Amino acid sequence: TLVECVALGDKFVQNVKQIVDKLKDADRVESYVYARSDVTILAPITRPAKNIFCVGKNYREHAIEMGTEEDIPKHVMLFSKAPTTVIGHEQEIDPHSHITTELDYEGELAIVIGKKGKRIGEAEAMDYVFGYTIVNDITARNLQAQHKQFLLGKSLDTSCPIGPYLVHKSAISNPYDLTIKTKVNDEIRQDGHTKDMIFSIEHIISTISQGTTLEPGDIIATGTPAGVGKGFKPPKFLQPGDVIEIEVEGIGTLRNTVSG
Amino acid sequence: TLVECVALGDKFVQNVKQIVDKLKDADRVESYVYARSDVTILAPITRPAKNIFCVGKNYREHAIEMGTEEDIPKHVMLFSKAPTTVIGHEQEIDPHSHITTELDYEGELAIVIGKKGKRIGEAEAMDYVFGYTIVNDITARNLQAQHKQFLLGKSLDTSCPIGPYLVHKSAISNPYDLTIKTKVNDEIRQDGHTKDMIFSIEHIISTISQGTTLEPGDIIATGTPAGVGKGFKPPKFLQPGDVIEIEVEGIGTLRNTVSG
Repeated sequence: TLVECVALGDKFVQNVKQIVDKLKDADRVESYVYARSDVTILAPITRPAKNIFCVGKNYREHAIEMGTEEDIPKHVMLFSKAPTTVIGHEQEIDPHSHITTELDYEGELAIVIGKKGKRIGEAEAMDYVFGYTIVNDITARNLQAQHKQFLLGKSLDTSCPIGPYLVHKSAISNPYDLTIKTKVNDEIRQDGHTKDMIFSIEHIISTISQGTTLEPGDIIATGTPAGVGKGFKPPKFLQPGDVIEIEVEGIGTLRNTVSG
Repeated sequence: TLVECVALGDKFVQNVKQIVDKLKDADRVESYVYARSDVTILAPITRPAKNIFCVGKNYREHAIEMGTEEDIPKHVMLFSKAPTTVIGHEQEIDPHSHITTELDYEGELAIVIGKKGKRIGEAEAMDYVFGYTIVNDITARNLQAQHKQFLLGKSLDTSCPIGPYLVHKSAISNPYDLTIKTKVNDEIRQDGHTKDMIFSIEHIISTISQGTTLEPGDIIATGTPAGVGKGFKPPKFLQPGDVIEIEVEGIGTLRNTVSG
């Protein structure tokens, strides 16, 4: 599985590079490479071995749109999404119309842990990152509010589109210099930038790992910028048929449709 | 693994019964049975495939000891513990003294799901329960408060002792007629009763499964009665060397020591 590859770290990346180089030299490269239209892209990690870690309110303007300046956190706010939520690029999002009319999107940069670690210092935290991907942290706002703790409103089946790619960290020179854009039916809703994160990736990894062992394949979604549906007046919640596209600079565009 | 056995449901239970009956008739029963002192009891499920589901404030008096009557929930409050927290009966609890001086115990009846299900009605919810065990929902109160969402303060390594046994539901005629007692160094701290749960097991299963698929081996801790360390004035937090014993009637006694 890809989690096993991720656990191999640099060795895996070198092996892939060698294979790609050989393919470039090969006579019959077509026999090894599939056309994009012939394959289905699954989530980079289809079934995480634990819940996805998520950081809440990690962008100042998003914290304010969800409440007031009082909501800007002083410490990393962490919650989780069940592994049963994961779907891939272009897979459909279930609207769960029987329990919510307040389904919302949240475009986020996510990191994938490459190495087991505990009590990781901020200075060494990036050594534990394998790479980056995109998460759409789909949320049922009514359930999130009703049940106080976020778990249930964040854990509906199909509420965690991930992908389309897992990009090795060597391809991203500065994770704090990336635009995050979310469009719904081609309308730009979120137009954020990772430089505006309140808590850095290093700080998040260090904070979690002080008491909780991190493992290869763990996914940490680093929070969403302003512009979620609930932030609009009146709110712009997701409807059946809506197409959500999240583009994180250098990583790709994750596209999913709410099923009708 | 035991999760695979749990997924077999009644078939697994019948097979075990047959094996036990045959053993009773066998001449050399000793050659099949190990002395308790010769074995280490691991957690019934050593590595759950997702975070453990936990219900917060599911006993009125506990909700009040943690705050005021305002804290009695109107809807099931759900949070989770990472699978890396799980330890078995008599395994040691790490005090994590570098990040907390407010480590607390919470004795709880837990259920283990036996059958995959979604949108489960309350009337059929018990069909999805395989059996019962005990969970000690160890919590770092400072982290629980600081990080707002409970995940981090509930997910320290070794903070989820489970066991000693997984008792099939056929052995528990009424899960709402069980005493829950927690002792710390032989002092009774929690003396509760499952009849006082605010939300029933059926309601919890139905609520989660309306949007989130439940799977065999999923663990749901049903909440703790009054008497946690934080509830005392002054609080009685756990110290290195403390021995915690949680006895749930008909299920057993889960004992763990905080390492020194």
